[in-house]
Amino acid sequence: MSGAMNFKNCGSLLVTGANRGLGLQIVDSLASGRFSPAKIIATTRTPARAQKLQELADKHPNIHIVTLDVVSQESIEKCVEEVGQLVQEEGLNCLINNAGINVVADFHTVTAEKMIENFHTNAVAPLMITKAFLPLLKQAASRGQAGGSGSMGIQRAAVINVTSLLGSVELNWGERANNFKWYPYRTSKSALNMVTRCMAVDMEPDGILCMAIHPGWVRTDMGGSEAPLSPEESISSILSVIGGLTEKDHGSFLNFTGEVLPW
Amino acid sequence: MSGAMNFKNCGSLLVTGANRGLGLQIVDSLASGRFSPAKIIATTRTPARAQKLQELADKHPNIHIVTLDVVSQESIEKCVEEVGQLVQEEGLNCLINNAGINVVADFHTVTAEKMIENFHTNAVAPLMITKAFLPLLKQAASRGQAGGSGSMGIQRAAVINVTSLLGSVELNWGERANNFKWYPYRTSKSALNMVTRCMAVDMEPDGILCMAIHPGWVRTDMGGSEAPLSPEESISSILSVIGGLTEKDHGSFLNFTGEVLPW
Ligand SMILES: NC(=O)c1ccc[n+]([C@@H]2O[C@H](COP(=O)([O-])OP(=O)(O)OC[C@H]3O[C@@H](n4cnc5c(N)ncnc54)[C@H](OP(=O)(O)O)[C@@H]3O)[C@@H](O)[C@H]2O)c1
Ligand SMILES: NC(=O)c1ccc[n+]([C@@H]2O[C@H](COP(=O)([O-])OP(=O)(O)OC[C@H]3O[C@@H](n4cnc5c(N)ncnc54)[C@H](OP(=O)(O)O)[C@@H]3O)[C@@H](O)[C@H]2O)c1
Repeated sequence: MSGAMNFKNCGSLLVTGANRGLGLQIVDSLASGRFSPAKIIATTRTPARAQKLQELADKHPNIHIVTLDVVSQESIEKCVEEVGQLVQEEGLNCLINNAGINVVADFHTVTAEKMIENFHTNAVAPLMITKAFLPLLKQAASRGQAGGSGSMGIQRAAVINVTSLLGSVELNWGERANNFKWYPYRTSKSALNMVTRCMAVDMEPDGILCMAIHPGWVRTDMGGSEAPLSPEESISSILSVIGGLTEKDHGSFLNFTGEVLPW
Repeated sequence: MSGAMNFKNCGSLLVTGANRGLGLQIVDSLASGRFSPAKIIATTRTPARAQKLQELADKHPNIHIVTLDVVSQESIEKCVEEVGQLVQEEGLNCLINNAGINVVADFHTVTAEKMIENFHTNAVAPLMITKAFLPLLKQAASRGQAGGSGSMGIQRAAVINVTSLLGSVELNWGERANNFKWYPYRTSKSALNMVTRCMAVDMEPDGILCMAIHPGWVRTDMGGSEAPLSPEESISSILSVIGGLTEKDHGSFLNFTGEVLPW
């Protein structure tokens, strides 16, 4: 059975980078699917330019567009404030750190600045965003417990970090390694995997699930047109996995198929 | 048999952060040991304040002190220039990226700035230094081959990154995780592990070995006085491992005992 039906028990969900690519598809699939969260908070750094997202929000009243530039602490704090108003004492059930960049550089073209830029957006931002949303996540987690569902999952509180197979140090060897020699991107995703694991340890006492998921290689601006998966395919599979997460997945690194990946 | 005897076939070796702690001990153990490289290049950001290193250099004429601030590209380039003069057409056989910092911060005190500072010194600097020394490493590797020893190892050319067990994402779970909740440090060392693996892939065609080693928990300024190992113990074990490295260790993550660690 698909875990996607569990989203009907997810009061609120927030996605970063929701104006295009996988983030937009998450919002689209959830809003138009049979099991939609009560509140879908779609964040983007420039709502004025997020036309497709605006169109979706016009059709689905449970979509709320909020401004968030993930590398700005000021923007993060404003966003938390707004989301707090939206969700009130129910808190935030599911945070999906999806926004990401690929600062393409190989051994010869890589610079310290490129490494740091990619690291900031892909690894540091999810950490700072999760920290800032912690009070709202805790609120949702404690209500989930009071309601009898003391176990972990999106019906209670969860942080999902969209990582990449390219962040696997183990798999960066042999044939696979030679295809994508992207130093800043690979390093940022390995770092995100460690951040995920650190946060999983720290949020466990509050009953907040935390894990990292690889969406597959997908036809978006980042994935390019050669990728084997459409955004619909990737996200349908991802939502099924996310919806079905339980304690046993806490602190894990999963493929979009639900398979465990090596760090 | 200890691999340390192989250092007699290592023409030149460079260590970063050689003014105190493990870096200083590497220089001391190699210079006063039975099997000393022809040239030991000990780098520090402030030679004028490196009194213990100066004393060692006064005793051992094969120690050469060179200035290197690992986070400054200008300093890196100057250092390569000076080292090039020292080693001439023999190139550089062994580069040990040892300099590191621990910007202590947990989930509650971590900031984007702390994450980036630790990442820059511990993960980006070893990458930028290795890139800059690549011509000298290649030179040593091609001579090693011409001399009949086409296999990998410190007698030819090797890059050793001093990482940490705390950079293992896999081992950051359960009891171990609860002891050291250091977000910036752990993340920087996971990132260094990915950088190591990326560089191993790229330097393989040139016959340059690249791997990451955990020195154990050692009584230095960073390790503190509670640590079980003395610098002498850690470095004696590490030098034995480094001296014995071959192709099979290329791209690996080893403990100071030579055991393979999980990423
Ligand atoms: N596509 C793949 O094959 C693939 C594979 C593995 C992992 N992933 C991961 O999946 C996630 C989504 O990727 P995608 O394929 O959808 O990429 P994409 O099409 O390039 O979209 C990236 C999204 O991230 C947003 N973003 C970037 N920096 C931001 C910032 N500072 N503040 C707010 N938003 C920001 C972008 O917003 P703007 O429009 O404002 O730039 C955009 O919405 C990323 O984390 C990526 O690493 C993708
Ligand atoms: N001790 C342990 O238990 C332990 C465990 C696992 C891994 N490690 C790793 O082992 C390595 C050595 O650690 P340690 O215990 O010897 O630490 P330490 O006693 O604190 O010494 C650190 C060294 O790094 C140098 N350094 C820092 N930033 C630098 C920069 N920007 N430019 C040049 N040099 C810089 C320091 O120079 P200054 O004197 O100029 O600051 C010093 O020489 C580190 O990579 C550390 O992460 C240590």
